[in-house]
Amino acid sequence: MDQQRWQKLLEWPLALAAVAFLIAYSWQVIGNLSGPPAVVAETIIWTTWALFLVDYLVNLSLAPQRFKWFYTHLLDLAIVILPMLRPLRLLRLVTILAVLQRTAGAAFRGRVIMYVAGASALLVWVAALAVLDAERGNDGSIQDFGQGLWWAFVTITTVGYGDYFPVTPTGQLVAVGVMIGGIALIGVVTATLASWIVEKVGAANDAEQVATKAHIDELIREVRSLREELKRD
Amino acid sequence: MDQQRWQKLLEWPLALAAVAFLIAYSWQVIGNLSGPPAVVAETIIWTTWALFLVDYLVNLSLAPQRFKWFYTHLLDLAIVILPMLRPLRLLRLVTILAVLQRTAGAAFRGRVIMYVAGASALLVWVAALAVLDAERGNDGSIQDFGQGLWWAFVTITTVGYGDYFPVTPTGQLVAVGVMIGGIALIGVVTATLASWIVEKVGAANDAEQVATKAHIDELIREVRSLREELKRD
Amino acid sequence: MDQQRWQKLLEWPLALAAVAFLIAYSWQVIGNLSGPPAVVAETIIWTTWALFLVDYLVNLSLAPQRFKWFYTHLLDLAIVILPMLRPLRLLRLVTILAVLQRTAGAAFRGRVIMYVAGASALLVWVAALAVLDAERGNDGSIQDFGQGLWWAFVTITTVGYGDYFPVTPTGQLVAVGVMIGGIALIGVVTATLASWIVEKVGAANDAEQVATKAHIDELIREVRSLREELKRD
Amino acid sequence: MDQQRWQKLLEWPLALAAVAFLIAYSWQVIGNLSGPPAVVAETIIWTTWALFLVDYLVNLSLAPQRFKWFYTHLLDLAIVILPMLRPLRLLRLVTILAVLQRTAGAAFRGRVIMYVAGASALLVWVAALAVLDAERGNDGSIQDFGQGLWWAFVTITTVGYGDYFPVTPTGQLVAVGVMIGGIALIGVVTATLASWIVEKVGAANDAEQVATKAHIDELIREVRSLREELKRD
Repeated sequence: MDQQRWQKLLEWPLALAAVAFLIAYSWQVIGNLSGPPAVVAETIIWTTWALFLVDYLVNLSLAPQRFKWFYTHLLDLAIVILPMLRPLRLLRLVTILAVLQRTAGAAFRGRVIMYVAGASALLVWVAALAVLDAERGNDGSIQDFGQGLWWAFVTITTVGYGDYFPVTPTGQLVAVGVMIGGIALIGVVTATLASWIVEKVGAANDAEQVATKAHIDELIREVRSLREELKRD
Repeated sequence: MDQQRWQKLLEWPLALAAVAFLIAYSWQVIGNLSGPPAVVAETIIWTTWALFLVDYLVNLSLAPQRFKWFYTHLLDLAIVILPMLRPLRLLRLVTILAVLQRTAGAAFRGRVIMYVAGASALLVWVAALAVLDAERGNDGSIQDFGQGLWWAFVTITTVGYGDYFPVTPTGQLVAVGVMIGGIALIGVVTATLASWIVEKVGAANDAEQVATKAHIDELIREVRSLREELKRD
Repeated sequence: MDQQRWQKLLEWPLALAAVAFLIAYSWQVIGNLSGPPAVVAETIIWTTWALFLVDYLVNLSLAPQRFKWFYTHLLDLAIVILPMLRPLRLLRLVTILAVLQRTAGAAFRGRVIMYVAGASALLVWVAALAVLDAERGNDGSIQDFGQGLWWAFVTITTVGYGDYFPVTPTGQLVAVGVMIGGIALIGVVTATLASWIVEKVGAANDAEQVATKAHIDELIREVRSLREELKRD
Repeated sequence: MDQQRWQKLLEWPLALAAVAFLIAYSWQVIGNLSGPPAVVAETIIWTTWALFLVDYLVNLSLAPQRFKWFYTHLLDLAIVILPMLRPLRLLRLVTILAVLQRTAGAAFRGRVIMYVAGASALLVWVAALAVLDAERGNDGSIQDFGQGLWWAFVTITTVGYGDYFPVTPTGQLVAVGVMIGGIALIGVVTATLASWIVEKVGAANDAEQVATKAHIDELIREVRSLREELKRD
């Protein structure tokens, strides 16, 4: 069995495991579980972890150039080893989005907008969970999920009131992730708008429109017909 | 009567209803009304609601593909049903702006700037009203309209001093709307400037100017005259 | 005497008056003057005001279409009438920058960067003066010029720590101006960088370079030489 | 010996001196040294300073147009003279990055992203050191390196919670540098994304693709073959 076939086989199971992890993790953190429910949630989380670990090890053993694969997939290793990076398992969901999009076949700009909206929403949700998980029980101001969500929104938009902020190292690491996500969010929104405005401004004045391949093709047809006329002479 | 005629008929009445709603809502919240004035303001707000409800129901019944229309107009349903989303009725005013612009016939960039300036001003005003409506009487720091306006400016520009911030869920929902508006504001301002600078940089050096349809058309004329000369031979 | 000649005549005196105003205003606010120095500073400020008033009135009387000029120069009227808008007299300095630039003849992007750097520095300085002028003696946290400058930097970059913020309506109006300046600053910086990167990316791969007028001109020369060869036959 | 040969000779020693300075400075500030280690760190810092001073003086004496070189290298003078600007010696490391990149030969956009990531990380690290150096022992809230790093991240992303902020003039100067770095960071991220999206949107629809030099070259080949056919006749 080669690596590509394994990856194709595991694409959907891993995406589903990521969803299962998201649900169990949300339930565990929001519900602040104890007793049997805590055991159930923990079991699901450990099971998804086992699946990711197996996937990592099989990929490593099947890779044609094992050392190169290891070197270029250090993030995957970190996600499997460090419990703190557990939420990054959700990166697997990017695969689902890709599948959804391949079906829809919309324009690139529309695709970018959907990705960004989806990724931002997921980032806000997961950051709220992770920050609450890190901060609860400490001196920090974030003590329930509503506060976590509000804090994540205030941070990703780079507003930063300062009414809530993390005080533990783990919480601050989550915050740095959300801030970088915020810079990326502003960047993608602006870039998509810029691409749209540049296009619209170009389209407004027909003569000042940027020359496209279609225009050049028209010209080439013109020259070719000239050539054929010459041949007929 | 078909749906298009109904929509054309209701375009201006709904825009006027949105303005009437804006005035009544501003009066109600800023004046912190009680007694007869409160009744008058409430009556205007309920009347505009009734108009929006009738418009929604008529549109639903006239739509050729009723289920598709329902599915693609879930926001309209939410605006009619949820009192919290009442301020979104002002989205109707976008229609007025469109009409104003159709008359002016200015360039696309000018249009975008006017839209953004108008929409930002409206968003700041309405957010100040909505946040004051939600926060007044609670523990929060926003207790008069001046504070609401100041908070809305500090938030939409993503500065976020933290001297005023909402503490109620409704107020925080309004804040999320303003923050998203702020990201969009930065995006549109930047994108418009980028489109302008790209154009100016291109125009500065004649030879390095991007080839436009006009240039290609000049070339096509050249080739055609060559063809005609050949025919004359 | 027509309006154009008057404007050409007054261009430099008004720019100098703006500089004189800037110095006197800076001295007055930073020095927190009293006694004779206060009188001197006040006199300079009132003299520059008189010059701006005379310029406004003469322009109004010389304008060919008086009402149109009045309507399109409401900002000039506001600057002359409202003492609060006095710092806007510095907009006159934009003229100096324009003169400096006409001499240098640099590329458009360089021009934009110089303008933005100059305008941002001036905005930070003037905002620090204006906010200190409004806040000093009130409950607010901004009580000396260093705090004003620090606040202006924190605001124009949209960081907004919240350690200092204005509490008077005038101070908050100044703050709104600085925030809008901050949005514009981010926009211009980003747009200039975008224009530069788009150009560099295009230039990196010769074949994928965007077609320019120079390329089209090369083609036109090619076709013309073909035409001449045909004539010679 | 001419200036160019000197600069080529000193390129690597100065970069290494910058790295040595970074390590010694980090050790000194984070370790809050005293006794022999403090002497070692101080010695390294003074040695790198001496190297930079010698380089400045030799460059000045070797420059063909001494006054012009002096005038266009005021920043180098400031870095050598003002102890406060010591961290700017790290600008030398930009040379290393350039060398790394020349080897890799990646596309321009990739290069920009690597530069920005590297420069941002360095800026955050150095700013955390510099602000801690300035603030420690004062009333300010930043008293250990972790707080400095957290503050630098919160500032460069323009979030600005306000939980930590500098209170000394030197610390605030560092903060202004980080804020300007933040604006530049947002700008570069957005601009790179914009360039990428503009390209992708253009590539999606073949006919609406912007005309490139490759398309024009195809046309020129077409016209030339036409010309050759005519000659053969």
